[in-house]
Parts: sequence; C-alpha cells; structure tokens
Amino acid sequence: MALRAGDHSRVAMNGLKEKVLTLDTMNPCVRRVEYAVRGPIVLRALELEQELRQGVKKPFTEVVRANIGDAQAMGQKPITFLRQVLALCVHPDLLNSPDFPEDARRRAERILQACGGHSLGAYSVSSGIQLIREDAARYIERRDGGIPADPNNIFLSTGASDAIVTVLKLLVAGEGPTRTGVLIPIPQYPLYSAALAELDAVQVDYYLDEERAWALDVAELRRALCQARGHCCPRALCIINPGNPTGQVQARECIEAVIRFAFEERLFLMADEVYQDNVYAEGSRFHSFKKVLMEMGPPYATQQELASFHSVSKGYMGECGFRGGYVEVVNMDPAVQQQMQKLMSVRLCPPVPGQALLHTVVSPPTPSDPSFAQFQAERQAVLAELAAKAKLTEQVFNEAPGIRCNPVQGAMYAFPRVQLPPRAVQHAQELGLAPDMFFCMRLLEETGICVVPGSGFGQREGTYHFRMTILPPMEKLRPLLETLSQFHAKFTREYS
Amino acid sequence: MALRAGDHSRVAMNGLKEKVLTLDTMNPCVRRVEYAVRGPIVLRALELEQELRQGVKKPFTEVVRANIGDAQAMGQKPITFLRQVLALCVHPDLLNSPDFPEDARRRAERILQACGGHSLGAYSVSSGIQLIREDAARYIERRDGGIPADPNNIFLSTGASDAIVTVLKLLVAGEGPTRTGVLIPIPQYPLYSAALAELDAVQVDYYLDEERAWALDVAELRRALCQARGHCCPRALCIINPGNPTGQVQARECIEAVIRFAFEERLFLMADEVYQDNVYAEGSRFHSFKKVLMEMGPPYATQQELASFHSVSKGYMGECGFRGGYVEVVNMDPAVQQQMQKLMSVRLCPPVPGQALLHTVVSPPTPSDPSFAQFQAERQAVLAELAAKAKLTEQVFNEAPGIRCNPVQGAMYAFPRVQLPPRAVQHAQELGLAPDMFFCMRLLEETGICVVPGSGFGQREGTYHFRMTILPPMEKLRPLLETLSQFHAKFTREYS
Repeated sequence: MALRAGDHSRVAMNGLKEKVLTLDTMNPCVRRVEYAVRGPIVLRALELEQELRQGVKKPFTEVVRANIGDAQAMGQKPITFLRQVLALCVHPDLLNSPDFPEDARRRAERILQACGGHSLGAYSVSSGIQLIREDAARYIERRDGGIPADPNNIFLSTGASDAIVTVLKLLVAGEGPTRTGVLIPIPQYPLYSAALAELDAVQVDYYLDEERAWALDVAELRRALCQARGHCCPRALCIINPGNPTGQVQARECIEAVIRFAFEERLFLMADEVYQDNVYAEGSRFHSFKKVLMEMGPPYATQQELASFHSVSKGYMGECGFRGGYVEVVNMDPAVQQQMQKLMSVRLCPPVPGQALLHTVVSPPTPSDPSFAQFQAERQAVLAELAAKAKLTEQVFNEAPGIRCNPVQGAMYAFPRVQLPPRAVQHAQELGLAPDMFFCMRLLEETGICVVPGSGFGQREGTYHFRMTILPPMEKLRPLLETLSQFHAKFTREYS
Repeated sequence: MALRAGDHSRVAMNGLKEKVLTLDTMNPCVRRVEYAVRGPIVLRALELEQELRQGVKKPFTEVVRANIGDAQAMGQKPITFLRQVLALCVHPDLLNSPDFPEDARRRAERILQACGGHSLGAYSVSSGIQLIREDAARYIERRDGGIPADPNNIFLSTGASDAIVTVLKLLVAGEGPTRTGVLIPIPQYPLYSAALAELDAVQVDYYLDEERAWALDVAELRRALCQARGHCCPRALCIINPGNPTGQVQARECIEAVIRFAFEERLFLMADEVYQDNVYAEGSRFHSFKKVLMEMGPPYATQQELASFHSVSKGYMGECGFRGGYVEVVNMDPAVQQQMQKLMSVRLCPPVPGQALLHTVVSPPTPSDPSFAQFQAERQAVLAELAAKAKLTEQVFNEAPGIRCNPVQGAMYAFPRVQLPPRAVQHAQELGLAPDMFFCMRLLEETGICVVPGSGFGQREGTYHFRMTILPPMEKLRPLLETLSQFHAKFTREYS
C-alpha cells in the first residue's frame, strides 16, 4: 500500500520512520522492468570472480562472461586507426608527433575543427556534430547504393539503446485499451521489453520461427496484431536484423513483406540494425530497411515511417565503452522530429568522444590514405574470425545430443535450444526458478561459463534456450563449446 | 483527437495516409517538455552563425553563446593531466612514449587494469568501474572531513543529468491527487521541469528570495508544500547549491534547516551539487548536504534519504563533452537501490572515457607526483579567473540603470533582473512572446549576444531576468557586459 507523505504517525516500533522511497512506494513501472543480460546470473558471475581472486577453490580457474556482446572484454584489439584519431582528438599536443600517420592527424584536426572551442570537452549540438551527421549520411548512401540520406534526419546518440528508448518515448500515449502497443520479436533483445515496461506501454509479442532458422513470418505478425487490438493500440513494429539473440539475417522479400504489412496496418517501423556489419553465412546479405523501403517506391517510399538504429559497439569496431550510435528517421512528421530534437536537448548531447569515434567508422580510410592497408587488414581479420567462430559454434552445438542450434548467419550470438529432462524442469520449479535459469546457474557454478537463459529473451512455452556470444577468442571458444556440451550431457544424465 | 491505428478510412484528400506519429498522437508528456537552455533563442543563434559564415551583413561579427555553461566552447583550455591520462587510456601504444609524465602513465595503466579487456572499449559494470567508485568514495571523504563514503552507494552516470533523471524516475508514482510531487526552486535549471513533465510528475515551485541574494527560506518551502498537498503527493525536494541559474551559495544553517524540514515532512532530498568547486565570494563556502546531514547526527544522519549529484562538466575541468558524473545515495532503502542498479543496467553503462576522466578528478595528482605543480597551477588559474569574472559581471551590471544583479557567489552564471518598459512588455505580448524572450531575441539580433530569458528558468510574476554565463574570456567579457548594458539602455529609451 502506498504511504501518504507527511503521515507522521508512520513511525515503526523501533522508532524509525519508514523510508520515503520503498518497493511499495516507488515507480511501479520501474519495478516491472527486467533485464536478463545483466540480471542475477551476471551478478553471481561477478561474485564468483571475486571469490576466485580471494583464493576460494572452484572447479574452474576463470569465469568466461559469454553473456554479453562485449568484443574487447573478450580480448578483441581495438582498430588502430580509430584509436589513433581519438587519442589525437583527446590530446591535441600529439598532433605534431611523428608517431601518427598523416591521415589520422588530418582527421583529428577535421573533427576538432567541428567541435565547440575545437575541443572534445565542449558540448555539441544535441543532435550531434554537424560534420559527423553529414558524413554519416554519405556512409548510409554508400551502403544503400546511392539512395539519398539527409543529415537533418540523423541524430547521434549514446549507443543505440538511447536512441531506441527516445523513439519509443515519442510513441507512448493513451490509457487502458488505447495504450500504445509495440510489436517486438520473441526471442528479443530485452532492452525492448525493459523500455516498454518502464514507459508503461504494451508489449505485443510476435514469434520468430525457430524451425525456419528464426524467420519472420507476416502471418504471425498479423496474428499478434489482431490479438493485441482491443487490448491496446498497436502503433509500432520493432525488427532486429541481423537478429539478437537469434542470429538470423532477413531475406529481402521478407523485409518487403514486413514493410507492406506495416504500411497497411499503419505501424511505425523501428529497425534495429546494429549488427549490419556482422553477416557471416554464405548466401546471407544485409539489406537495410531504408534501402528496401526506398526501392519499393511510392506510397511506401514516400509515406512509411521508419527509424533505423546503428552503433559503434558492434560490427568490427566493438567499441561498446564509447557509447556512440545514431538513428536515421525516414518520413517522420517534421513537427514530431522537432519534438524529438527538443527531447534530446534536455540531456544536452551524446558523449563527444563517442561521436568522434563514430566519425572514423562512417568515414573510414580510403585506398589513397596511409592508414588504409592496416585498417582494412584489421577489419577483415576481425570479421573473418567472427565468421569462423559462428560456424564453429553452430557445428559443435549440433554435434551434441539434446542441443540444437540454428545457423548463426549474423550478429554475435548463438541461441541454441536445449532439451531439459522433466525431472530437472520439476526441480527448477520447486526452487521457483525458470528451468533454463536453473540450467544456466548450474552451468556457471560448475564450469565458470556465464550465458543468459532463454527466458530472459522470451521463447515458446515449453522450449528452453540460452544466449551465448561467439566472441571468446578461438583458442578459448572451442574448449568452451565442448565444456558446455559435456555439461549438458552430464546434467541430462543427472536428472534422467 | 487520437487516431485508431489500422483505421484505413483515414486517407486524406491528397491520397496520403496520415502519419502514425503526429503532434496529436505522440506522447503528450513529451510535448509538454520545455528546455530553454537550448530553446528557440539558441536555434536562432545557430542560424545567425550560419548567416555570418555565408557573408550576410550583421551589426556584429560574432555570435557569443553565453547561454550555456560550456567552458571549453568559450576557450577554456583542458587541464593537461586529465587529457594526458585519457590519451594514454585511449591509445595504450603511447604508454612507452617519453612525452608523458610518469604519473600520467601509471594512472592510465591503473585505469586500464580496471577495464574489461584492459580497454576503454569494453562495457563497464552498469554502476561504473569499481576502482573509480572506490576512489570517488575517498574523494567524498576528503571533501567531507573524513565522514565515510561507501563505493556501493556511488553510481557513475552519463553527466549529472542522467543520474538526476534516474532518481526522479524511481520517485514517480500514483495518479490524480496521489501523483508524485517534487519541490524545485524557482528560478531552476530547466532539466528539472523538463524531466518532471516527461515523467508526468507534478512540479511544485518554491521561490528563492531575490531580495536576500536568492536565499532559500524554509517558510517558503512550507508554503509550497502545504499548497501542493491535496493536488499531489510531494515526495522529494530538489536543491541546487551552488545555485543554477542564480549563483547563490547556501549557508550551513540554511542547509540544516532544509534537512530538518525534509525529515519532518518526509521528503527525499536531491542535492544538485555539480558546482561544488565553483565558489568565489569571500565568506562563502561549499557545504555538502551529506556532510551537514551526517554532522546533525541521528535521526537525520541515520534516516534522511539523500541523493547528491556531481559531474566533470563544471568545476575547473569543464569537460562537458565527456558526459561523466556520479550520484551518491545516502540512507536509501537497499531494495530500492537494487532497483536503481537494475534500471541503470538497461542502458548498459555510462561512457567509459567519461568514467576515466572522472578518475583523474576524484584522484588528482598529489604533491609528490611529477604532474602536481602544473595541475595545481592550471586548476588555480581557471578558478581564479572565474572568481574575477564573477565579480566583474556583478559590478558592471549593477552600474547599469535598470539592471540589478545579485552577487555571483558561485556556479557559472549571473541572473540579473532587468526592468522592461511597459510599452515593451505590451509589444511583446502582442507578438505572443514572453517580455524577456522579446528582450533577449532583440539583444541577439542586434548584438550577437545569446543569453537565455528568465522565463525559461521561472521567476516571480512581473519580474524579468536573463541567465548569462560568466565564462567568456576576460578580454571578451568586459565589452560583452558593456554592450549588453548599453543595449538595455537603448531598448529602454526605444520603448519609453
């Protein structure tokens, strides 16, 4: 029961007043938020690391945090050019140092020229530095075969998460049966469920088809939409492509069908495309929603509202800590776009070092630049290794009885399905745990491997999964996959 | 009127469907948000800059953006040690370079050691890097004469704004007359009004006393609280000390009285202390709410809930672009604190470069370090110049008839009161503008000086003010103040 403030009689027996802010009186929407990627299993992993440091004996010597797509934490080296430019921007005294290639110096000067007071320490305009938005527009145009992009439709952000939440915020309205509903895939990246809970909007689930490599089916979108109407007012459709946690890469025809559906049903499209550089499977190719939309021509190209998100955290860069990203909006009502600008201005600006880093990504060295060869080699090496790891992961899991893993066509995760024996399921339920949480917790305690239970992303009732990044270095990944498979076999025997 | 999604009949005469997201259908709370510091006057300043670049003739040659506390944009040089450490963290190849002092290298190694994968590019834990939170706790202890600080109560953030909004988010609950009310000063920094509008909480205004140098009076707090009860449920009290935009520094007795009031009335205290290093006036001293609270002893020290905010954007650092900051919570319900941790984890982590920069601030060079002398000299120079500018600003304004300026005891702004002739007020109203907006807009158009009208911060009915930073370099500040005073005289003549 909520307390009335100023209720002086509310003094407990021990003479303590009750706190103003308690679980009972706090924001109930915040209480409902769940975020499995950093949930209880990760907190336990942190504790185990501490115990190891304190010399507590464990059946393993190291905790492997395969719970999150954090490339550099897993040992991936930063791309040299990116960090050279950034160091020069941070400490311009280095601009005269011969230790830096000439194009890195030129680039840093260009970025600083575009900063207030020629310093990363000044605020930028709220939508991000003009130069960087312009070059992001050129980058999108190159990606999309020349389809124009307008820098005024690009807003830089604090990672992609920030921009996704901002757009969701704009969309939330209504109460009861007119409350905004947002269609999200199941399994999903839990930022979406968390943000919708916080904003008190209605999460409308559509299921990806595990039997068809996590394909998106418009009939299923329609089912979800029809069931939601009446309870809420569905106004937006989120797509994650390449998929997180599911790793599928959408075919072009599928994207067209989704756009047609969104247009007919009047849904604002949100395309989470942060893994656009992470496509590995033969025959798979990334198609941006923007490009497909534009190539479909009117009325889609001229009317369908779309927001597409990108980030410096993934791709070949893996610069998660810098929190750089952007959103491009297409066909957005100009008055709403102004409101979005205003909303962003309250938080002043995205981190300027992340903006500078983004500039090196949207405007990488070209063949005539001194840094080109090294940049290209480093980039290719990261992407080639990721492709090999994607293949290896799928392969090792599919050799294990009771584990089935769809191809990791893109992104950075496998989301294999695990069979859990009925006795294990029952035991978990007695403990008040989701069965896959029980499995993952046992895995962590016995092997030091930290993965996230499928229940944190959503899955069809009665199926169990986990999400694991493919990011550990090759020499660690193979034993990790084998340990995991063996643990599953042992777990299965134990509960059979 | 809100549209029903899927309402296919909603096709306008021109064959265009109405947009899904329009001013009518968007989040009404976001529409209500206002943020004057980056409002219409700043947009016009940007346009004027562009016109100047295009060679359009103006009565001035430069736009001076005195609207925002952005030290480096105004030419303040970054502190060398901070940037050296950061450059080393960004590009560890430099760790072997003899161009960097030994303590900067040691420091960078220490920070990198605490980062995932020893890289700024990895995510940190959501509450921020453990090492940095520990050293922030030591920093707070030194500031507060040894009163203990617990790193587990410190959460790093994306600037102070992020942490302020997070705490407000926790506090928001209820509907109608039980809706959370939050007491904020008038004049206020408009982050507060903007966040409360966005969160659909009730803004409860208490007025600072301009006649007594913007002092905070508990009788006025009580008036505001009593009037608010019945309409809403007041649950938090925000204090900005040193004041923004008002520049006052609170006396210790005043802080004690505020704490007693908050305790009696069961209000969660939010102390915005981002200007704690910016105290200039003789006789003024910064007292942290935490220190005063602890020195008051039980029941205050053991029960009163408090959140105190700090940032790397202000002080002597002025590193706004890095978006670094933290909040320390005191006496917060541990279960709520866990919820706060969870909420922060959805956004993954604060920008790691900003965290690293914060480390150099909370753990500056000590006398035995090679960088100490230079660090100390640069720090003192910035603060001494700010003190001189604070004095000059007050002095020049108070020499101008019709302008009255309270002492700028601290922070980075003057908030002078201007008399506007009744005919100017009337003319502004005919244009649909707040009279001080009209004055500031005319000032901008005729002199290139960009300041923010008092109406953007709140002021007593019938009074007019503007906020101006004292940050322009000395050689620009004096002519700027004189131009501004002369413009006011001319404006007064014109409308008399």
